[in-house]
Amino acid sequence: MSNQQFNPEIEPRSSSGEYAASLADIQRAALTIASAAHRTPVMTCRHIDELAGARIFFKCEQFQKVGSFKFRGAYNAVSAVATDPAAAQRGVITHSSGNHAQALALAAKIFEMPAIVVMPTSSSPVKRAAVIGYGARVVDCEPTLEAREQTVAQLRQQSGAILIHPYNDPRIIAGQGTAALELLADVEALDAIIAPVGGGGLISGTAIATKSLSPRTLVIAAEPQGADDAFRSKQAGRMIPQTNPQTIADGLLTSLGKWTWPIVRDFVDHVLTVNENEIRAAQRLLWERAKLLTEPSSATALAAVLRPEFPRFAHPARIGVILSGGNVDLDNIFWK
Amino acid sequence: MSNQQFNPEIEPRSSSGEYAASLADIQRAALTIASAAHRTPVMTCRHIDELAGARIFFKCEQFQKVGSFKFRGAYNAVSAVATDPAAAQRGVITHSSGNHAQALALAAKIFEMPAIVVMPTSSSPVKRAAVIGYGARVVDCEPTLEAREQTVAQLRQQSGAILIHPYNDPRIIAGQGTAALELLADVEALDAIIAPVGGGGLISGTAIATKSLSPRTLVIAAEPQGADDAFRSKQAGRMIPQTNPQTIADGLLTSLGKWTWPIVRDFVDHVLTVNENEIRAAQRLLWERAKLLTEPSSATALAAVLRPEFPRFAHPARIGVILSGGNVDLDNIFWK
Repeated sequence: MSNQQFNPEIEPRSSSGEYAASLADIQRAALTIASAAHRTPVMTCRHIDELAGARIFFKCEQFQKVGSFKFRGAYNAVSAVATDPAAAQRGVITHSSGNHAQALALAAKIFEMPAIVVMPTSSSPVKRAAVIGYGARVVDCEPTLEAREQTVAQLRQQSGAILIHPYNDPRIIAGQGTAALELLADVEALDAIIAPVGGGGLISGTAIATKSLSPRTLVIAAEPQGADDAFRSKQAGRMIPQTNPQTIADGLLTSLGKWTWPIVRDFVDHVLTVNENEIRAAQRLLWERAKLLTEPSSATALAAVLRPEFPRFAHPARIGVILSGGNVDLDNIFWK
Repeated sequence: MSNQQFNPEIEPRSSSGEYAASLADIQRAALTIASAAHRTPVMTCRHIDELAGARIFFKCEQFQKVGSFKFRGAYNAVSAVATDPAAAQRGVITHSSGNHAQALALAAKIFEMPAIVVMPTSSSPVKRAAVIGYGARVVDCEPTLEAREQTVAQLRQQSGAILIHPYNDPRIIAGQGTAALELLADVEALDAIIAPVGGGGLISGTAIATKSLSPRTLVIAAEPQGADDAFRSKQAGRMIPQTNPQTIADGLLTSLGKWTWPIVRDFVDHVLTVNENEIRAAQRLLWERAKLLTEPSSATALAAVLRPEFPRFAHPARIGVILSGGNVDLDNIFWK
């Protein structure tokens, strides 16, 4: 549609100035992705409602293309690049071991654009195969931040490809905000919306959409205790990067960035942390009782709702939970 | 609603004479269950469509109450019993190790009716706990057909409870047919509808609904090779009971009965059998690519669509697949 305010040649910037994305950006992204992305269903589960003492509305991004919300942002960003034929010819590049890699590869394929994905050698063979299956070129790197950034920089110089960062990019944030836009349209009078936070793309888009359309709705970020940089950053009032993250929620290992932190700082009401057992228990509840096949990052959001410190509302409270995706490696499933 | 044509005091019988259920019975059942059952969603998966060379519409009964289509029939049958206050006071009884047990227990709870469930000692502790959780009385029996029938007969005599057979009962068959009724309403121009066959309650209701509303739509039953009594019965033209069934599709171990066999004989176009590896591969596809958490009995239906002998149609063929449920024991998950 009209993402032309983003010049793909230069460093991504916000159209609104202070924050990475505005409601208008998210609404434009919704139009942009409408033809390619699924409008995912909202589902409920009586048993989980009883446990939580609330009505929970699950926004099911595991049913999104490539199995996670990441397709929303990736498609929105690639679509912006596609408005410039010269840039489109050079294509896009990113680094990711997970859902963003697949999402960007599919989005580039749809626009018939070359894509390079830098993946750590530790990436799951299933995910690597999926990225290659979408036609992207996969380049290996050592599993360190330095190796990753160096490899990307080198490849950008060689190819001229446009970097599409997994979350620290206004076009990505606007795209991810479309999930909350749909949830707010489909379910009225939500007391709170909760989404997991890793790098902050999803929670940032969610916060902008929610606070613009329904200011009274609390926006809550759910974070693993073993990767709690958003929690600590909010406490400190300044961005504290994550070092040595430890969690089964493999989508939430990353740190907030310069575009996501100000939104988390100013528009997210609470960050709640959960431990690994709580994540596992929530994931089992989702699978066993709701039949919702979700990944641990998604379960983190439900786990936060079940914590005692989750803010309580007049009954019946109405809570929107964004289930971020369903990409689990089925070779590695054990319940202990 | 108006299930009063069934006298719960006597042996279940058909309202239409020759067959257990008519379209009108299924339509009445749909009204009866509307307030209690979910209208389950129909979902699609591009990747599986490509593999199958068809458009597949999955009717997702794993999202039904208690996680399987069994709630439809159980609620319909219990609702018929509830029309007679004296019978309702005596309550209902059944034998089942699986989904019907939970479905009947919940339906009886909704009607505040006593329920007895005879379960083999080999039943999964999780399913036993669920049945007890719905307030039913669980009575153990040895895991043989004889022990089961003897235990049920004894308890019926003592309690006067009305037997609700898991499938060989017109009220059950009419209830199970409501899934196909919804599928035919939600998706037009289906070339085929396929459902798994065990005792035949689901496929019988599906066949009556489909052949009444869309005679050109093929009705196909999917059956494990290790429990292929429907296939052999169709070949022979007479009912051949299953002995010593062997399959991971634990919902499909039972034999056709006197109410389901005539419908399978006359209205099911084909029975396709699949082996255990095909069931496993189809289940993995459903989980991994469609994020549909389904049990092996459900996967049997998709496995049949992927068989080379599945009837091919002009492109794009439109196939309805009834996913029967999602109750898997998560303690026992391994992918080998």
